Amino acid sequence: MRWPMSLAVIDGAVIDRAVTPGGTIGILGGGQLGRMLSIAAARLGLKTHIYEPGLNPPAGDVAAAVTTDSYDNAEALARFADSVDVVTFEFENVPALAAATLLAHAPVRPNPRALEISQDRVAEKAFIEGLGITVAQWRAVGNLKELKAGLAEIGGVAILKTRRFGYDGKGQVRIKDVCRAESAWDEIAGAPSVLEGLVAFEREISVIGARGLSGEVVCYDPGENVHRDGILHTTTVPAAISSKVRTDAVLIAGKILNALDYVGVMGVELFLVPGGGLVVNEIAPRVHNSGHWTIEACVVDQFQQHIRAVAGWPLGDGSRHSDAVMTNLIGAEADDWLMLAASGGGLHLYGKAEARPGRKMGHVTRISPRPN
Amino acid sequence: MRWPMSLAVIDGAVIDRAVTPGGTIGILGGGQLGRMLSIAAARLGLKTHIYEPGLNPPAGDVAAAVTTDSYDNAEALARFADSVDVVTFEFENVPALAAATLLAHAPVRPNPRALEISQDRVAEKAFIEGLGITVAQWRAVGNLKELKAGLAEIGGVAILKTRRFGYDGKGQVRIKDVCRAESAWDEIAGAPSVLEGLVAFEREISVIGARGLSGEVVCYDPGENVHRDGILHTTTVPAAISSKVRTDAVLIAGKILNALDYVGVMGVELFLVPGGGLVVNEIAPRVHNSGHWTIEACVVDQFQQHIRAVAGWPLGDGSRHSDAVMTNLIGAEADDWLMLAASGGGLHLYGKAEARPGRKMGHVTRISPRPN
Repeated sequence: MRWPMSLAVIDGAVIDRAVTPGGTIGILGGGQLGRMLSIAAARLGLKTHIYEPGLNPPAGDVAAAVTTDSYDNAEALARFADSVDVVTFEFENVPALAAATLLAHAPVRPNPRALEISQDRVAEKAFIEGLGITVAQWRAVGNLKELKAGLAEIGGVAILKTRRFGYDGKGQVRIKDVCRAESAWDEIAGAPSVLEGLVAFEREISVIGARGLSGEVVCYDPGENVHRDGILHTTTVPAAISSKVRTDAVLIAGKILNALDYVGVMGVELFLVPGGGLVVNEIAPRVHNSGHWTIEACVVDQFQQHIRAVAGWPLGDGSRHSDAVMTNLIGAEADDWLMLAASGGGLHLYGKAEARPGRKMGHVTRISPRPN
Repeated sequence: MRWPMSLAVIDGAVIDRAVTPGGTIGILGGGQLGRMLSIAAARLGLKTHIYEPGLNPPAGDVAAAVTTDSYDNAEALARFADSVDVVTFEFENVPALAAATLLAHAPVRPNPRALEISQDRVAEKAFIEGLGITVAQWRAVGNLKELKAGLAEIGGVAILKTRRFGYDGKGQVRIKDVCRAESAWDEIAGAPSVLEGLVAFEREISVIGARGLSGEVVCYDPGENVHRDGILHTTTVPAAISSKVRTDAVLIAGKILNALDYVGVMGVELFLVPGGGLVVNEIAPRVHNSGHWTIEACVVDQFQQHIRAVAGWPLGDGSRHSDAVMTNLIGAEADDWLMLAASGGGLHLYGKAEARPGRKMGHVTRISPRPN
């Protein structure tokens, strides 16, 4: 027997493109995000197939199938896409050519445009600014002369970031003085870059938003993020912000999701500046570290929400039943797993064999009742 | 690099036998319980290896390895046990010989004695009664003469149950009149049986209890169960019982866990009778359908609790942050998956291809805030 057709009417809209239970979600990337996506898919009766260049990816332990191959093997990508019902990804640095190859064989959600934009800090800033949303002062920088000119124009402290492949503070140099322009340029090896003015923020927050195939948008309440050594350290929900700022942040996320005709979960990082204004720092077209708290504090977490979206299912409720604090376990911090297991809270370990410095090994979420 | 040794002192006790992250839990049986156990293990950075005679078991989609072989292939069992750090099971009908074979190669938790006792209704009732805990009136029945004598002794309505391999109401016949003795005996094909007096209960409840390797016991609050056609239909938490009954039920579960030197999660089904007394109906030496609500309503659910116990980890907190109602999706009820996904609550589908009548296909849990 086959599962019944997925044609159904929900809230007046015909949903006819849903992946049926027993179907397979293809995921590019097999790290901890892919692992948690696989778990979420399994809960809904869906299988996953992981495509990952590295051997023994963490997500492989909980996936129905794993393909180990590079992102430039068009044949392997095509075989992979042919074996699944929809393709999604756990990270934004999937090569554009790979996405194009996949698209000829299966739906790719979110769409490759979101990938292209978020892969390039210049394209990202121009796109967000084009929506009337504030970003930090910025200048595209292609050579040392442009860097010096940019520093003069922006004034004060600025951050030089490579346009591509930056994450967890990698590929970034802070420049306090124009005299440091040359050494900064050397440090990023003269890669095409963007120069950003430093934002004097009061708080860093993020919105985890989802958009479904039918255009519905569901956002979780913004979390407040604290970074350490350029890596997310804690996310606290609710953030200590006014209800106006909360609403503004969610509206910004919704605007970006709609403008990209996005399908899936996105992380939007924002700075709250004095006076209550919001500045978008960056967007991540995927489930996001600052949304891990949703596993313990919501019935439908960000991972299931992403799977629901890309599978063409209705989105789940984004409300939380509890307040939460999520703390990342970086490098050797996860060596204390036995004490962490004994000390309460929701412990998550990602199944990585080697605890290298700076590597995300797991996280812990502690919840508390929401005040009435 | 290897994970650090698991030697640690927790609450004054040295824990030196814990399975370290990256280790493997072997699970006998690959149904939905094995699937949810695999997911729980993955969250803690542990792998699972499923041993299951049937092809394409639901748990296989989320397991690092699957062995497809019979429970009487000693060589396959030994290979399986050699490949894992500890063996556990998702159902109680694992043959005793298989358990003995496994035990020569790896720890088996819970211990095979719990299996032996719960596999045989006569041994189970004698054991529980021996602890001073009330069970229904019962007589072991080996032939028609014993059945007739038992019916006369018990009086009133009685239920004839096969000693072995009963579940979800299978292998049971209700006898209202001694004249029906012969047809009842035919119906169970003359299998060694137990005759039980019908318990006139007010409510059916169950306690999901866990015992760790160091002897610590953690129980979830009792749930109230409603059956339909002999299959669990809903579990509601909290059960509508007094705090005295709640305490009595938890103490009964703790007594059974301790008496068996049990390690893992056990389901204890009880009847509440008029006057407030409790009668144990049966025990299940495994995670239990009536404990599925813990996934949404507790930070550490029954599946993670079982994995923690059998891995030698400290148990998690058994408290719940929300009240809950779990509803099973039986047979064709899961065909409405798209409407169920849209209607809120935590939807779980087990990845079974065929929706046969009476088959457990999934469940839905709805939570609500705990009253203050």
